[in-house]
Amino acid sequence: MTTDAYDELIKRWKDATLLASSASLLSWDQQTMMPPGGIEHRSRQMAQLAGLIHERVTHPRVGELLAECESDSELTADPHSDAAANVREIRREYDRDTKLPAELVEEMAQTTSLAEHEWAEARAKSDFSLFRPWLEKNLELFRRAAECYGWGPDEEPWDALAEGYEPGMRARSVEAVFTPLRDDLQDLVSDLMSGSRKPSTAIAALSLPIDAQTAFVPKIAEAMGFDFSRGRIDPSVHPFCSGSHPGDVRITTRYAEDKFFDALGSTMHEAGHGLYEQGLPPENNGTPLGSAVSLGMHESQSRMWENFVGRSRPFWQWCLAEVNKAFGDATSHLTVDEVYEGMNTVRPDLIRVEADEATYNLHIMVRFELERALMSGDLDAADLPHEWNRRYKEYLGIDVPDDARGCLQDVHWSAGLFGYFPTYTLGNLYAAQLFEKALEDMPDLYASFERGDFSPLKAWLNTNLHAHGSRYLPAELCERITGKPLEPEPLLRHLNTQLRPLYGA
Amino acid sequence: MTTDAYDELIKRWKDATLLASSASLLSWDQQTMMPPGGIEHRSRQMAQLAGLIHERVTHPRVGELLAECESDSELTADPHSDAAANVREIRREYDRDTKLPAELVEEMAQTTSLAEHEWAEARAKSDFSLFRPWLEKNLELFRRAAECYGWGPDEEPWDALAEGYEPGMRARSVEAVFTPLRDDLQDLVSDLMSGSRKPSTAIAALSLPIDAQTAFVPKIAEAMGFDFSRGRIDPSVHPFCSGSHPGDVRITTRYAEDKFFDALGSTMHEAGHGLYEQGLPPENNGTPLGSAVSLGMHESQSRMWENFVGRSRPFWQWCLAEVNKAFGDATSHLTVDEVYEGMNTVRPDLIRVEADEATYNLHIMVRFELERALMSGDLDAADLPHEWNRRYKEYLGIDVPDDARGCLQDVHWSAGLFGYFPTYTLGNLYAAQLFEKALEDMPDLYASFERGDFSPLKAWLNTNLHAHGSRYLPAELCERITGKPLEPEPLLRHLNTQLRPLYGA
Repeated sequence: MTTDAYDELIKRWKDATLLASSASLLSWDQQTMMPPGGIEHRSRQMAQLAGLIHERVTHPRVGELLAECESDSELTADPHSDAAANVREIRREYDRDTKLPAELVEEMAQTTSLAEHEWAEARAKSDFSLFRPWLEKNLELFRRAAECYGWGPDEEPWDALAEGYEPGMRARSVEAVFTPLRDDLQDLVSDLMSGSRKPSTAIAALSLPIDAQTAFVPKIAEAMGFDFSRGRIDPSVHPFCSGSHPGDVRITTRYAEDKFFDALGSTMHEAGHGLYEQGLPPENNGTPLGSAVSLGMHESQSRMWENFVGRSRPFWQWCLAEVNKAFGDATSHLTVDEVYEGMNTVRPDLIRVEADEATYNLHIMVRFELERALMSGDLDAADLPHEWNRRYKEYLGIDVPDDARGCLQDVHWSAGLFGYFPTYTLGNLYAAQLFEKALEDMPDLYASFERGDFSPLKAWLNTNLHAHGSRYLPAELCERITGKPLEPEPLLRHLNTQLRPLYGA
Repeated sequence: MTTDAYDELIKRWKDATLLASSASLLSWDQQTMMPPGGIEHRSRQMAQLAGLIHERVTHPRVGELLAECESDSELTADPHSDAAANVREIRREYDRDTKLPAELVEEMAQTTSLAEHEWAEARAKSDFSLFRPWLEKNLELFRRAAECYGWGPDEEPWDALAEGYEPGMRARSVEAVFTPLRDDLQDLVSDLMSGSRKPSTAIAALSLPIDAQTAFVPKIAEAMGFDFSRGRIDPSVHPFCSGSHPGDVRITTRYAEDKFFDALGSTMHEAGHGLYEQGLPPENNGTPLGSAVSLGMHESQSRMWENFVGRSRPFWQWCLAEVNKAFGDATSHLTVDEVYEGMNTVRPDLIRVEADEATYNLHIMVRFELERALMSGDLDAADLPHEWNRRYKEYLGIDVPDDARGCLQDVHWSAGLFGYFPTYTLGNLYAAQLFEKALEDMPDLYASFERGDFSPLKAWLNTNLHAHGSRYLPAELCERITGKPLEPEPLLRHLNTQLRPLYGA
């Protein structure tokens, strides 16, 4: 009986994901709490759990149960029914996890671990030639992985890898959105740089005690609706969000005296991720219906709160008074406009993770084009620095002085994360399109920000996005919510409207 | 080949204990970090891990391998060799874990969980009659468990349960130590109460900010030798120590403005446990040779640092200056004698966990006698309050006004912890006997305390106790280190020497 098969499938899957949630807690602990002396034992714990999870996810019985469920036309009649969606998504993960031979998985783990180490060395010495053989090894291994995954007609190796991060994402469709976006972003940035005014730089001089920052930023997360009875915030080297259950979501941020606005931005970014995790339906925890749909859609939530809320003027009309309450004399000289302008400064520069909202996507495009060409074989690893630098000149108008600040700046390719970068820009695009729709549905949205009331936006996201888990594919979900497929115009409208006045452009 | 069997046994055991160390981290997190909303999911995670650990520990193959190892006379020739000790201790745990039928284990888990709940209710209402049926159920179940474990000639049901906490501990031998100890303690307390002077109560009035306490107490743990690169300290409701590996040991304490000396005492107590865990041989982690020997011996480490160091005058000759550095004007009026006397105040009272060093053991004796009689059937549950109150009058000279402050005060019996209480007093006895030997070996020990140098004591404990893991049984270890079996005199000498002068008795 198929119902029995489906029930057993879900039971097995929950068993695997429950174990994965314990591994996730250990990983959170490693990045926030663990003393240095714990690392060796922790890596043994993690390897053991990874093995137990892999056993469960790739168990042959899962394959049998999937086949039985898929052959039941009643169960799969409505592709968005609970059962059909769960079966579809479990099939996706089962296939990906079983398609790679164990030797390849092991070789990938070993090689990327070494490659990451060599990359750090190469970056420190700013010497691409040290990293090149490792990049070549990684490319060879991940091309083999792509072949194992396979790709359809009109598709390419990059697609097979990107599918693991963003179901349904294809290089061709990414290109179709990125190309017009790139042209318009280049025009925008160029206009801004030659505009008739410059935004205030008053906030750059600010220095605030870390204790006071640490006490303050949770209040903003709380105002956003992040529920601290179902989550917590801690400092870590790299901010992240880790959710094992909607009742227990952990976010992190980082502090430096002269970087208060970064701490605040990171907090809003991670709390945006956290609201997604807290908003997932707890009754479906451990199944795809209780899980976020994709990296890109997850990133849309963090970027929406960081950029569309946190860099908006209405937000600062409320937030500056809160900042002044917390920091007193240290910030009382700032005006709303000074903060708002400081948060929206644009400058083409070398480093992606330090980029502003407008140029950020140009950094991503460079990477997308290069990794796609590397993967297809159109670009030889040896030519990477040259092609990188050429694009930075063309897209951002800047000269790359060395590889450390050029093609060696990101960890991703050393770690084998080919096909990952575009999810960042997808996040920005989804955020813009969703936020435009939210503004359309709730004309008073900005007015609520001015009052420090973010519950309408949170409730809208809970209902329209979070509650669905992985019932729909990311692209379907976007269309279902906004009525349109993903398009570049909302992000461009947002950036043009927000940035041009500040630059008199 | 037996070497193969032994290697496989160790491999399987390490696999089980590695998983247990992950469960231990989740449990630590639950008590220190987890937001309230995480509890339901956490209990599912813990149940899953408990099941996986139980499967491994009780796997029939473990039984086969044990039998094979035990039949190899060469392997077991020296009972204290690595292999013999590991086989002996794995056998002990395997037998205990396999002797109980699964239904009984399940019934015990369910009943104690309910009984704990009902106990809390009964204590809140101070009504023993509410708890009585649950105590009876627990007694019935744990008598059945004792029968499954079995006991030897001249032994009794209580022994079968106590063995799980303190290998080799028997009611008869506990009684042989407790009886003379009780008489002498009663005399001591009675003399103190009618002494010619009273210790200073100056420290009772102290109130210190929690932030400053939180910053201060880790310094004392560090001075003791607790290595914060291999551990950490956090606040929790009930202080505890949790160690999964010598490289990652977590201790907790608790703070209240008017209870600085409790926070300090708890910290020294838990750091004492922590030093044991950090001092275990890391190369034997995951096997009995890398594990603490018993609850009583573990408690000896916490009590030694809390009582024999932390309540000593030489300690305060150093520590008060540190306290003054940290708290300035708030403590600068205190003298070393005032603190020393305040830390050594004796008062027969109702509550075990608030008891002083001298009367504490009388509280334990009451419980030992009663649980032994309950378990053998000599005492009916219905008569517990009467027998409890009678003993408090006889041993401590006080009237018990209600059951909440009487036989309902401790959680242990509701949780099924029969045979556990004596390990607390064993800890005090071991601590005294070990400390006396340490003083004999290192006549300058107190002088080192006056300088804030605790490294000689830590090194002595590392070498003589911690490094052995579970190579010896607790009683053997005591005799090996001190040259004598456990005896009450060292504790009595310590208490008499320390307390009589303060009371002019």
